[in-house]
Amino acid sequence: MLNSILESPLFRIVNPQSIAFFGASNRFTSMGTNQLSSLKSLGFEGKIYPIHPKEKQVLELKAYLSVLDLPEVPDLAVMVLPTRVVPQVMAECGQRGIKNAIVVSGGFKEVGGEGPALERKLLAAAEKFGIRFLGPNCLGVANPHHKFNVTFLPFEGRPGFIGMASQSGSFITQMFDYLRRFKLGFSTGISVGNEADVDLVDALEYLAVCPHTSVIALYIETIRRGPAFIELARSIVRHKPIVAYYAGGSEAGKRASFSHTGALAGADALYDGVFRQSGVIRAHSIPELFDFCWVLGACTRPQGNRVIIQTHSGGPGAAAADACSRVGLDLPPLSEKTLAKLAPLVPHTGSLNNPVDLTFSKNPMDFFAAIPDVLLSEAGADGLLVYFLTPTQIVRRNMESMGISEDEMPELIDKLFGDQAASVADLLGKHQKPLIGFTFQSPDNPFIQKLLDHGIAVLPSPERAARAMAALVGYSRLVNRLSTPASP
Amino acid sequence: MLNSILESPLFRIVNPQSIAFFGASNRFTSMGTNQLSSLKSLGFEGKIYPIHPKEKQVLELKAYLSVLDLPEVPDLAVMVLPTRVVPQVMAECGQRGIKNAIVVSGGFKEVGGEGPALERKLLAAAEKFGIRFLGPNCLGVANPHHKFNVTFLPFEGRPGFIGMASQSGSFITQMFDYLRRFKLGFSTGISVGNEADVDLVDALEYLAVCPHTSVIALYIETIRRGPAFIELARSIVRHKPIVAYYAGGSEAGKRASFSHTGALAGADALYDGVFRQSGVIRAHSIPELFDFCWVLGACTRPQGNRVIIQTHSGGPGAAAADACSRVGLDLPPLSEKTLAKLAPLVPHTGSLNNPVDLTFSKNPMDFFAAIPDVLLSEAGADGLLVYFLTPTQIVRRNMESMGISEDEMPELIDKLFGDQAASVADLLGKHQKPLIGFTFQSPDNPFIQKLLDHGIAVLPSPERAARAMAALVGYSRLVNRLSTPASP
Repeated sequence: MLNSILESPLFRIVNPQSIAFFGASNRFTSMGTNQLSSLKSLGFEGKIYPIHPKEKQVLELKAYLSVLDLPEVPDLAVMVLPTRVVPQVMAECGQRGIKNAIVVSGGFKEVGGEGPALERKLLAAAEKFGIRFLGPNCLGVANPHHKFNVTFLPFEGRPGFIGMASQSGSFITQMFDYLRRFKLGFSTGISVGNEADVDLVDALEYLAVCPHTSVIALYIETIRRGPAFIELARSIVRHKPIVAYYAGGSEAGKRASFSHTGALAGADALYDGVFRQSGVIRAHSIPELFDFCWVLGACTRPQGNRVIIQTHSGGPGAAAADACSRVGLDLPPLSEKTLAKLAPLVPHTGSLNNPVDLTFSKNPMDFFAAIPDVLLSEAGADGLLVYFLTPTQIVRRNMESMGISEDEMPELIDKLFGDQAASVADLLGKHQKPLIGFTFQSPDNPFIQKLLDHGIAVLPSPERAARAMAALVGYSRLVNRLSTPASP
Repeated sequence: MLNSILESPLFRIVNPQSIAFFGASNRFTSMGTNQLSSLKSLGFEGKIYPIHPKEKQVLELKAYLSVLDLPEVPDLAVMVLPTRVVPQVMAECGQRGIKNAIVVSGGFKEVGGEGPALERKLLAAAEKFGIRFLGPNCLGVANPHHKFNVTFLPFEGRPGFIGMASQSGSFITQMFDYLRRFKLGFSTGISVGNEADVDLVDALEYLAVCPHTSVIALYIETIRRGPAFIELARSIVRHKPIVAYYAGGSEAGKRASFSHTGALAGADALYDGVFRQSGVIRAHSIPELFDFCWVLGACTRPQGNRVIIQTHSGGPGAAAADACSRVGLDLPPLSEKTLAKLAPLVPHTGSLNNPVDLTFSKNPMDFFAAIPDVLLSEAGADGLLVYFLTPTQIVRRNMESMGISEDEMPELIDKLFGDQAASVADLLGKHQKPLIGFTFQSPDNPFIQKLLDHGIAVLPSPERAARAMAALVGYSRLVNRLSTPASP
């Protein structure tokens, strides 16, 4: 673990104040132009110096013929250039005194042929001048807290709490929109590419001390420094959770071309062991990676695995109970005290077993206030799963029949949904227990939007909510185990 | 199997020409009013006779004091009434000559106490007059092809090809919106409730011969007539696939209140055996239930399990390859012939292994035309998984730089996306192989919308696409096995 984020070789790469940008022009068919456009559109507040052999201006910025002409030494060089010129440009950056770079260009080790030799040449040029760099063959970095996004796609979400290091640039850029839909976002996303210099372990080390990052996501195809990874991860997970998705199938895809040796299974088990040893939580898909990060970053840690399910629809409650059983969550019966408190709130058609199925609410607001309040107070339970469904059409029908006009409705519905969500959010502050919602509605649904605005995790199915709760329970147990001194 | 759909006890319940409606008023706080409103808003073309003790008009329809006063004998009675009056009303319907009913009212067997006795009384009243009925404690039926929806929620999607029978009404009504987002819909959705008379097996029998249903979805908490279910399902799956989700956890939820006897595992294994014996495909979540129904209804059946993955992003390709390996799909290498045809289409940074990773396309349209055409022609493969990502922002940036004005863009983008999707759809007709898309974008994304408009299945993650392809392969094998005569 670093004592200070300033010690990380990534610090200036992720937080530059000034940038020399190679490979952008005014043509949007070039990748570099798109990357510079992303940087500009997020409102980067530092200086940007495009370097271009012909253009006087690039995307309305004054362009320079050579890095040697720049009026200052920039913190960072970004290169989106043809493969063959990259080592030479790296050397020129070194001559100008630049100490950090991102090499987006591909065509190095990953393509074979002359690629590996070119990559060695690139590394030698950097080492000669003491330059630390990300890539080659990466998609760059997004640090929205610093208004810095040098990737191919514009960052349109909100800065968030998920710090990600990825061996696929796609899982940085293509997740901007995915996370935005859930009102989540990256604190920092780092595409490590070929890891010729700075690698996944360096990125992990950076994210461990990044103050905006409360949970770390990793996309892994291979770990090049196994022992260092394990040692570092073990020290991090005591205070910050790490979730990893390992694409074992990447190997399968490559090997499928040659033979069916069963090597995949071995590799998969090996990585499973690495994650277990280092306290890293393993996710089995990209959506699950972000589900786990979401609840680990947003929810209170539970003291155990006893969960109550609150629903007003039998099927979703049953599906949630089934999913809980399958991931090792217990569904305890409610205590006499809780049953007595619930009785006046639940109609006779409802069920006070766990799942607590209201069928319908005597007073609809109870579903968001009195009932979850009682359930979160249950001493025999550690967390609550709540099924959220508020069909806008039914609310509209009710309002129509009350004589409310079409014009008045949007504001009233907005207020109603806002009040319901605020009521749930208040309970999170009151009870130190996790509450995870689940729904089949789109995250764009106006009611779900309000819950997300309040930072409530609402997952898109009972199974995903149950698995996320289990991940939270697992992390909680890990932290308790690590913080308990071994018995003498 | 029925010889004619007219023989089904559900035929008039699902396709009524005239309806006596009990329990609707002009107050939208009552469930019955909402259900009648749903029926009206879908534009039901038959006659509706509200029965109400006081109102002259209900939702602008002439109301009748008693079913005995009706000017004709309606095909169907729908009851959303207080529990205690239901048996008596059923008898009155019988006196008037009505032969079919849907009993929405709850408070019968499912609540214990006097409930079971009331349910027996209800059944006796129906039997006395030869009435067949759905429920009690159900949410009714939606048959959008007949503009008939008597459930709590309005049907706003499109009529589709998924016929569903469900022991939870929620998984009919609350899926209207879920399916609509993917441009899917129910052919018919039947909530069977307590199954006092018509049951899940009857519903299965109906859906087997329903001409709008190309795949059957079941939500099961318990099967009351096991041998009949198995025999019927076996005869159906030869020509129409059945997918089931079993909520074993419902039992877990109930039993959690008493003890942890491990009975769940037994029950789960039992149902697994029932599904296997009867050729029913088991889904492990509600989203998976509909994923499987989607591809089974929309895609050509593959001749084997050899799949090619087409991507332009390494990570999503690797994740898809990993997911394929885990569900028993093979990723064969491409033949020399295919490699020769692809070579001019793929840049040097790309990979011609399987996954086929274009990194970027020399000509973007190739991704939707020439390349999948070549891959679907590969004799050594049975199906294609395609990663779909078309970031609207990049398309906009390109257009902007070409001097296209903001005003012109929406139409041009719409045309571009439409052409790309149409090109993919053309290939489906040309090659008799399944193509399943996957994406992390929202189904609301304008490009994904175009693909969905063309009936292309685009699933929300590589894992879900791989599992759906595996279900398709499994069903194809089942049909081949069943249609091969046993050797002498």
